[in-house]
Amino acid sequence: MITPGTFELLATDPRSRARRGRLHTAHGVVETPVFMPVGTRGTVKAVSPRELEEAGAQVVLGNTYHLNIRPGMDVIEACGGLHRFMGWNGPVLTDSGGYQVFSLSRLRKVKHDGVEFNSHVDGSRIFLGPVEAMDIQRRLGADIAMVFDECAPYPCARDYACQSVDKTLRWAALCVEQPRAEGQLVFGIVQGGEHADLRERCARELVKTGFDGYAIGGVSVGEPPDVLLRGIDDSLTELPWRRPRYLMGVGKLWQILEAVARGVDMFDCVMPTRFARNGTAFTRRGRYPVKAGEYRLDTRPVEEGCTCYACRNFSRAYVRHLLNVNEIMGVRLLTLHNLHRYMTFMQEIRDAIAEGTFAALRESYRGLRGEKVNQNGENDD
Amino acid sequence: MITPGTFELLATDPRSRARRGRLHTAHGVVETPVFMPVGTRGTVKAVSPRELEEAGAQVVLGNTYHLNIRPGMDVIEACGGLHRFMGWNGPVLTDSGGYQVFSLSRLRKVKHDGVEFNSHVDGSRIFLGPVEAMDIQRRLGADIAMVFDECAPYPCARDYACQSVDKTLRWAALCVEQPRAEGQLVFGIVQGGEHADLRERCARELVKTGFDGYAIGGVSVGEPPDVLLRGIDDSLTELPWRRPRYLMGVGKLWQILEAVARGVDMFDCVMPTRFARNGTAFTRRGRYPVKAGEYRLDTRPVEEGCTCYACRNFSRAYVRHLLNVNEIMGVRLLTLHNLHRYMTFMQEIRDAIAEGTFAALRESYRGLRGEKVNQNGENDD
Repeated sequence: MITPGTFELLATDPRSRARRGRLHTAHGVVETPVFMPVGTRGTVKAVSPRELEEAGAQVVLGNTYHLNIRPGMDVIEACGGLHRFMGWNGPVLTDSGGYQVFSLSRLRKVKHDGVEFNSHVDGSRIFLGPVEAMDIQRRLGADIAMVFDECAPYPCARDYACQSVDKTLRWAALCVEQPRAEGQLVFGIVQGGEHADLRERCARELVKTGFDGYAIGGVSVGEPPDVLLRGIDDSLTELPWRRPRYLMGVGKLWQILEAVARGVDMFDCVMPTRFARNGTAFTRRGRYPVKAGEYRLDTRPVEEGCTCYACRNFSRAYVRHLLNVNEIMGVRLLTLHNLHRYMTFMQEIRDAIAEGTFAALRESYRGLRGEKVNQNGENDD
Repeated sequence: MITPGTFELLATDPRSRARRGRLHTAHGVVETPVFMPVGTRGTVKAVSPRELEEAGAQVVLGNTYHLNIRPGMDVIEACGGLHRFMGWNGPVLTDSGGYQVFSLSRLRKVKHDGVEFNSHVDGSRIFLGPVEAMDIQRRLGADIAMVFDECAPYPCARDYACQSVDKTLRWAALCVEQPRAEGQLVFGIVQGGEHADLRERCARELVKTGFDGYAIGGVSVGEPPDVLLRGIDDSLTELPWRRPRYLMGVGKLWQILEAVARGVDMFDCVMPTRFARNGTAFTRRGRYPVKAGEYRLDTRPVEEGCTCYACRNFSRAYVRHLLNVNEIMGVRLLTLHNLHRYMTFMQEIRDAIAEGTFAALRESYRGLRGEKVNQNGENDD
């Protein structure tokens, strides 16, 4: 096995900063750019590990905040760590819980060494800081652990953003010193809101500390598209070319393409799974609501030409019926399809970079950025 | 292909009326005694056709009443019939909708040639009678269609039960004359409530008309266990030995065994799937609530020694966690396990009859009939 953390750059795009890479982890190799399905509570919603594998998933996300509350670390440790607990033998990346502490919990008290907050489940008082978050991620056995950061809201006054960056840096330095699971990588997170100089400073300082990879946080928190892209640019300028970069929580296909063009390697988002649960299909041509009446008699698959289990075996009319009568199988089939769509999309990106056709691929998706792109009311915004 | 409807008797138990058989249908062979998972709305809840096959399911149930309302016959016909619609290539048996008309719908008006009622979905006025029910089942392409009957409630006064049997017989005679799907079998249904002579008369008259198989209806509608068993006995006395017998809606394991001992070949019930959704696991030793706190740290599978996908890959602690946080995967895994348990149970029955050990098997399950059978609070009543 190649040492975990080794990141090979296999190809670069001559007309952008897009790169094709390979990240080695304790549970296997990750071909980048990669999209990582979200398995917050130890399961990618509605999907089995076997199906994840068949869809081409390489890394699965877990969440420190949620798993620590339910089922609790003693349970996961008793079951031999998160991989064995959830039956997934591939790489696992865990979020540190920073984002959830600041978005889900109430009566939050930010202290020097972490945050005291009320559990969103039973209101009990919990403390989570860099030491605690790294300890949990070590016990989970995550292949990639994220530092415990503060994710500032949007918009965010410069003063607050500045303090938030200071805190994030101080906590990151603490995180990197904590004991790790075997072969565990730790990624730093660049914060700084919409303030270019803060993001640059944050990235610079993180690099001085030294991490196995670097994430861009505090994006996709309600800001307009151009602010999002600028946030990516501002974060990347100071990051080392030879280390993997992970854009957190961004999942619109055009955003992924634009981020790849800027040099991002890793992505995660609840979009393919969450949208499936409300009946939205992602396709090559954009997305559409499968529950709509116009698909009532539609014998075509959810997406023509798609090779996923759902599209190989079932009609749009069937998936629509199941969704409309709230049958679990409807959500299952659409989740499989959407994940397959995302995985295929990332494969296309990887192939395009390797073959020197990334610019054309990027161009072909520009049309999907608008509100509506075709008569079916499909769009990919 | 052997002619659909052919029923081979392969072995009989010397100490009871249990028989091991093989029913040929247009979509394949059914080894009996068989348990048929219920797929009311065109899907066995939470389970894919591939998983059904892996669990050993042979026949799947569909429902005339439900499928006719949603998605509607035009949709299923456009998709090439129920088999292709739901992606299940094995035999399908459809209930006629009689039971649902009398249990689900309101403002019911029973007429000479059927029942007018309000849809439980949108209240629209619908008419369903023997002609309509058979037409729907023909369009669904069911391998086994059930006659449209009246399922009398329990308790039921003799007068009402008597009229109900008359109606059921008149309707059954109409059903058998209707056009059928290719190779479609039609089963008559014995009614008569708790009245032995009515059940006997009903069976006798049905046999005169002549059906491919005979079902026992109006059981498991709230009557005590001994009344249920007597209802089975009363129905079977007049039924031909050489035709398959189907006990509708009965699914407790000891009831299945007792019915098999009396000469029943086919069963259906929502128990394995519905109980999975509320967190109950069926095991060889009885059933237990997986969500219970005592299984929090339990690293054993849902059932030790079980070879289903859930038990091969996941711990009880994991399934418990998923069920407690309402993750679909929890229901999926427990449904797979429960179905596997039922399928294994039926395989054991078939093997026991073939090997002459059915009496011992029956005896071994007697203990499970009571309220509680062990310290874990497990029971199979």
